[in-house]
Amino acid sequence: MKQSQIFSKTIRDNPKDEESVNAKLLVRAGYVEKVMAGVYNFLPLGLRVFKKIENILRKEMNLLEGEEILLSALQPKENWLATGRWESYDTLFKFLSHYSKTEYVLGPTHEEIISPLAKKNIVSYRDLPRYLFQIQTKFRDEKRAKAGLLRGREFTMKDLYSFHSDEADLDEYYEKVQKAYEHIFEKAGIGDLTYLTFAFGGSFSKYSHEFQTLTPAGEDTIYICDTCKIAVNHEIIGEQDSCPKCGNKKLRKETAVEVGNIFKLKTKFSEPFGLKFKDENDQERNVLMGCYGIGLNRLMGTIVEIHHDENGIIWPESVAPFKAHLILIENSEGEIKKSADEIYNNLLADNIEVLYDDRDLSAGEKFADADLIGIPWRVVVSEKTLREGKLELKSRKKETGELISYDNFAKAIN
Amino acid sequence: MKQSQIFSKTIRDNPKDEESVNAKLLVRAGYVEKVMAGVYNFLPLGLRVFKKIENILRKEMNLLEGEEILLSALQPKENWLATGRWESYDTLFKFLSHYSKTEYVLGPTHEEIISPLAKKNIVSYRDLPRYLFQIQTKFRDEKRAKAGLLRGREFTMKDLYSFHSDEADLDEYYEKVQKAYEHIFEKAGIGDLTYLTFAFGGSFSKYSHEFQTLTPAGEDTIYICDTCKIAVNHEIIGEQDSCPKCGNKKLRKETAVEVGNIFKLKTKFSEPFGLKFKDENDQERNVLMGCYGIGLNRLMGTIVEIHHDENGIIWPESVAPFKAHLILIENSEGEIKKSADEIYNNLLADNIEVLYDDRDLSAGEKFADADLIGIPWRVVVSEKTLREGKLELKSRKKETGELISYDNFAKAIN
Repeated sequence: MKQSQIFSKTIRDNPKDEESVNAKLLVRAGYVEKVMAGVYNFLPLGLRVFKKIENILRKEMNLLEGEEILLSALQPKENWLATGRWESYDTLFKFLSHYSKTEYVLGPTHEEIISPLAKKNIVSYRDLPRYLFQIQTKFRDEKRAKAGLLRGREFTMKDLYSFHSDEADLDEYYEKVQKAYEHIFEKAGIGDLTYLTFAFGGSFSKYSHEFQTLTPAGEDTIYICDTCKIAVNHEIIGEQDSCPKCGNKKLRKETAVEVGNIFKLKTKFSEPFGLKFKDENDQERNVLMGCYGIGLNRLMGTIVEIHHDENGIIWPESVAPFKAHLILIENSEGEIKKSADEIYNNLLADNIEVLYDDRDLSAGEKFADADLIGIPWRVVVSEKTLREGKLELKSRKKETGELISYDNFAKAIN
Repeated sequence: MKQSQIFSKTIRDNPKDEESVNAKLLVRAGYVEKVMAGVYNFLPLGLRVFKKIENILRKEMNLLEGEEILLSALQPKENWLATGRWESYDTLFKFLSHYSKTEYVLGPTHEEIISPLAKKNIVSYRDLPRYLFQIQTKFRDEKRAKAGLLRGREFTMKDLYSFHSDEADLDEYYEKVQKAYEHIFEKAGIGDLTYLTFAFGGSFSKYSHEFQTLTPAGEDTIYICDTCKIAVNHEIIGEQDSCPKCGNKKLRKETAVEVGNIFKLKTKFSEPFGLKFKDENDQERNVLMGCYGIGLNRLMGTIVEIHHDENGIIWPESVAPFKAHLILIENSEGEIKKSADEIYNNLLADNIEVLYDDRDLSAGEKFADADLIGIPWRVVVSEKTLREGKLELKSRKKETGELISYDNFAKAIN
């Protein structure tokens, strides 16, 4: 894509109404635009990153045999009365439909929708297990919404729900999802700093698990066991003040952000909705459920919190909007431009995603924008490189680049 | 995909709370589930159709050089006050954020969001023209919501917005979008019954245009000129009671459903938001805008209204959830099942999307489900076909099938 054709412009100064690093950089680089506190538009560059994250998640959900669905954001009040969460869920947007004269909830999560849906399609043990997921917009009336993409009033979530005939089956799947989540955070470039964290399990399970990523931007406190590389959430620390795995009492305190959670709901939602199945002996039993969430906006914001320097974002290749940032120095109609155009076309032909800075700006301005936008590989075409018949290739992670032939360059970045 | 593994079950009888053909069939076949009036969940089969439609739209938007973005559903009250639509837009969901103490709109359309966004990124004539589109969820508090997917309180829309420096440029792009819309409806299998329809243009243009598809399920009345194959919307018929193209006064009256619209907004939204640009002479001028919408749910519902018979849906191949429906008669572990399994694996290897009915049901039940689900090609493997070393291939559009070898079958359906 040619940079001269991209809708969004970069912004030199930090926006005054943003406190978080992720929002400052994503707004300045033209990935997102703030609509109001906790609500962002995704611009062309931002949507590219978003879709890469979405594809990482979808691939892992498919490996977990998840069937993709799309549930409604508008939810009926009755379903929330049935689970008692109409009153107890503290970030619920509620409002009246003028014409239908009924109250709606704007879905912050989907147990109240998927449980009655499952009831219509799960009848016998032959219908179990089932795994359903969606990548869909959630709404939460958050008390504070100052952390950019880390905590929004509107955001996209990947939510997976599983349905089982017995605890052993639920346990086995829960373990599989746990491993899939580890792959996801690894692929998204935050695996090293992300800890499986024991958290409050609710009335039906001893523990649930969160995936917590270490960053000063996080709002949570966790206690890490350096022996086991797992952690304990602050909510259960009085109750559980040693490592649940090895008993180690020397836990290291840290602020962290929750990038995912997995939860054995068991019969918490199947009971109120009468979600039962007939077992092999024709006996009716409650279906057991698990739920597993990852917020895409929060994951994107966390990646930026982890991967940036004073000049801008440093995207991991797996989620970068483009692989290479081709920069033409001296935007004339002469030899240099011809050569850069040719390289651009070669990259496209080689299926390398490339952003081509063909704008009429100084080298300094272009380099500053490249650092801000944070594409993994910067490729410079200038009079100097042309004289040597080469390109200058620089990783966004490094200070200096190297002169390299086109063929070696294509190999190097693949 | 194996049918035994699909979450949704078919339903024998018409649901009592649905009046429209599209909802009856889509619910019975397991494409969608009704949450409440005008609100549907998309089940695995339904989401497959939905994504095919999405891809048809996205491809045409890319050909129109549209840049894809994703705008927020939550919108600030101020923006709607600025355009006067806070009071005048009659299907607006409005509600209070408990914590931010401000009122939100749940977006029924996005002019109030995209215009101020464009203002931040369009400064000079060099930034024009621009074309931005999204495929995103809309919310409208519809008075009546009884037409299934044709009129929902929550639905996905493809909305494209264009920004221009002068009328000639807007007119040229408007014509291009008109042609792209014709391609879209052609591809989606409703081209023959869809008419370009002249409609009310608002305060800034003489006409806007709708694309109206003839079906008894439609709520609109249009007047067709059979010479020009265009139509006039009932809203402007007193004012314009002859064909706007040839002057023909013998217009044929029909009920129809609006599957798309294109609208020259001109400065209607750029004025209230101060969306201006500097021209070549450094003079400030208003940006001219166009907007172009297609509702995905309505398009899917319309396809079903057009393409069905008394036994179920008859999907056009372009949007069908699968290309072939492989049906095993006599679900034994013997020769027939082995042969059907082999054919299933061959189809997968040949990249033919196939639904494999491997369930333990009678031939009659399987055929009834196949007709209801409406996949274009039915492929039967039975003792009879096996004896002849062939398959039975039947188009969903036809009454009878033919015996055919695997090789000829793969050719026939490709």
